[in-house]
Amino acid sequence: GYGRFGLMYNDMPAAGVSKTNITSRLRLQIDATTESDAGVTFGARARIQQTNGGAGTGINGVRFYAKAGGLEVGVGNIIGAFEGMDGQYPIDLGLTGLSYNYTAYGVGGADAYSSAGAGASLTNGVEVIYTVGDFKAHISASDTNSRVAGAFAYSFNGYTAAIGYQDSTALTDTEWTATFGGKIAQFGFNIGYAQAYNGFERWTLAGSYDVSDALNIEAYYANDTNTAFADEDSYGIDFNYDLGGGASFRGGVEKIFTGATQADLGVRFNF
Amino acid sequence: GYGRFGLMYNDMPAAGVSKTNITSRLRLQIDATTESDAGVTFGARARIQQTNGGAGTGINGVRFYAKAGGLEVGVGNIIGAFEGMDGQYPIDLGLTGLSYNYTAYGVGGADAYSSAGAGASLTNGVEVIYTVGDFKAHISASDTNSRVAGAFAYSFNGYTAAIGYQDSTALTDTEWTATFGGKIAQFGFNIGYAQAYNGFERWTLAGSYDVSDALNIEAYYANDTNTAFADEDSYGIDFNYDLGGGASFRGGVEKIFTGATQADLGVRFNF
Amino acid sequence: GYGRFGLMYNDMPAAGVSKTNITSRLRLQIDATTESDAGVTFGARARIQQTNGGAGTGINGVRFYAKAGGLEVGVGNIIGAFEGMDGQYPIDLGLTGLSYNYTAYGVGGADAYSSAGAGASLTNGVEVIYTVGDFKAHISASDTNSRVAGAFAYSFNGYTAAIGYQDSTALTDTEWTATFGGKIAQFGFNIGYAQAYNGFERWTLAGSYDVSDALNIEAYYANDTNTAFADEDSYGIDFNYDLGGGASFRGGVEKIFTGATQADLGVRFNF
Repeated sequence: GYGRFGLMYNDMPAAGVSKTNITSRLRLQIDATTESDAGVTFGARARIQQTNGGAGTGINGVRFYAKAGGLEVGVGNIIGAFEGMDGQYPIDLGLTGLSYNYTAYGVGGADAYSSAGAGASLTNGVEVIYTVGDFKAHISASDTNSRVAGAFAYSFNGYTAAIGYQDSTALTDTEWTATFGGKIAQFGFNIGYAQAYNGFERWTLAGSYDVSDALNIEAYYANDTNTAFADEDSYGIDFNYDLGGGASFRGGVEKIFTGATQADLGVRFNF
Repeated sequence: GYGRFGLMYNDMPAAGVSKTNITSRLRLQIDATTESDAGVTFGARARIQQTNGGAGTGINGVRFYAKAGGLEVGVGNIIGAFEGMDGQYPIDLGLTGLSYNYTAYGVGGADAYSSAGAGASLTNGVEVIYTVGDFKAHISASDTNSRVAGAFAYSFNGYTAAIGYQDSTALTDTEWTATFGGKIAQFGFNIGYAQAYNGFERWTLAGSYDVSDALNIEAYYANDTNTAFADEDSYGIDFNYDLGGGASFRGGVEKIFTGATQADLGVRFNF
Repeated sequence: GYGRFGLMYNDMPAAGVSKTNITSRLRLQIDATTESDAGVTFGARARIQQTNGGAGTGINGVRFYAKAGGLEVGVGNIIGAFEGMDGQYPIDLGLTGLSYNYTAYGVGGADAYSSAGAGASLTNGVEVIYTVGDFKAHISASDTNSRVAGAFAYSFNGYTAAIGYQDSTALTDTEWTATFGGKIAQFGFNIGYAQAYNGFERWTLAGSYDVSDALNIEAYYANDTNTAFADEDSYGIDFNYDLGGGASFRGGVEKIFTGATQADLGVRFNF
């Protein structure tokens, strides 16, 4: 798991809330596995995730899986084909990830692992992931809006192209998405696109630059046609400085679709 | 602890629920103990048990105990004299145990360890267990219906006979119960009887057969005179196939007292 | 963590509650830390604390910290300058601590680590602790009543003197407190004083005596001018008998400010 703590700034806070507040999270990860005589690994992953100000927090919905060679079957609080697709999280902005406006498929809904809730374990979530060489396929389904989603990724010469399609009964769910990214020397880049059943589209462009062994900078620009948003575009930049021992000093600032500017700064440490 | 996941079928589901659903459970067991200079073991047992669709689940009521030689005193979320009595759980049907209609004392109420709740720790639960040679005595008490229950078991030549009596202020609690069982070569058998203060009676007959080192089959027939049930009888059969490494493939089918037919199938793994 | 279980007696119980009940607590402590290349320790402390009769209990608010040499910065569910001050917990009466009437600063409110709740992580709690030689300074602050508290302690020849002051917008919060204590051979003693912004004052006098290597006796007398209390004084005595292996047999009896007499007796074990 990991811990992180620091400051979070938002220039459009809810009524009665300060613009600057302490932010923190502790994530305890529980991985329990065994291996059968035939070489099948059976496992379960659960988390206890405590956010700043929370108390009495227990474990989230569990993802169970069976894995053999390149084939994995998962049930419960599944990852989801879109959530697990290459290029959807090209960067991790600042200390907390901030808005995730840079995640293309976020233009609409899809099944995703819930670190604090039950996720698709409430709705018969099931998924199959198959990896062979440079090719990866991921199909997931749940009773939430009768979702069935598939994602396919192919890597070549350090680049990865991925495409995903989802069948759903909800207009607010994502219909399809595609990404393309890679790394050239110290430069990383990724472009993403997604469209929801209601016709809203999101474009994302993200880049990263390794200034030195310890210092990394990331930035993004995203455009979303969702008419509920105040702004069509969102953009931000961050830095991550490695302190060694699994600890890093991190911070980011961004202007998001709602029109708000937010920033964070602090320390994250793995254990 | 253990994890299990698979499918559960019920031909009389609640309104709006499918007949077939994913079933899963993760049980994390926490055992904390120390030993005094005089050789007394002090300990606590607690569980975090997450069922399919659950989230935010914390630890259950704790059972504390002190143990020396054959004598054990427990308080809190106690096991209970009936729950801990030999022959009450002669089989463990299918993946999930299914109905537990084959547990004789279940004709009425009694104190039992609660894996997800507080159990008798809410009501001053306390118990004493004494084991000497082939003889075992277990007395438990709580403020729930002023229950005081005692169970006594004796083993001889591979057979075990047990009898239990409970004093209670509730008509729906179990008054007395008796079991007899054993194993002859690959065949196991058990008969059980229990009567509640309201006069309802339950008979159970359970058997098991080891087909091979890896494959085991279990079956039961039970009869309950409780007039709230649609049917007087319940019966079922299952199989357990050992996959090695603490994992097993399991499934069962049964017709229960409510008149419903239910079945499960899946994998269980210990860790 | 630790476990403890035993009996608790109170001669003025709430309506419908017995005078004597089982008491128990299981505390699981989670300490996660890492150390950066520059020698800074980053860590998080959380607890799962289950009290008798509780169920579904998750982790409490987390205290995060960064520590280097004698300097420590904490955020979230902070300890608090008064709670962490020398001489505020001179004894630990009986099995459970009982009333804590012997904690001087308890005359009013102040930030303190919450073992079961969120504590000051709800209100931007932050603190700095600095230790150099025999001197210790602790400053804490939170948005709860705009509290800023400072405590300073100095140790010399086995004695420790400490003084603390708190700025707060609430009349029911503690304004200042002072303690002095030490140990002479087998005898320990401590005197404490505190005053709240509403003018209420509390004096405490506590002592301990090591009868033998295994047996220790503690006693206190406290006086509080809070007019909401039935009595102005509170007093009690206890014993702690070391059983080895981290286990101890403990009990205490006291007459508290509410006028009630309470007592406890049982076993505590560390693990």
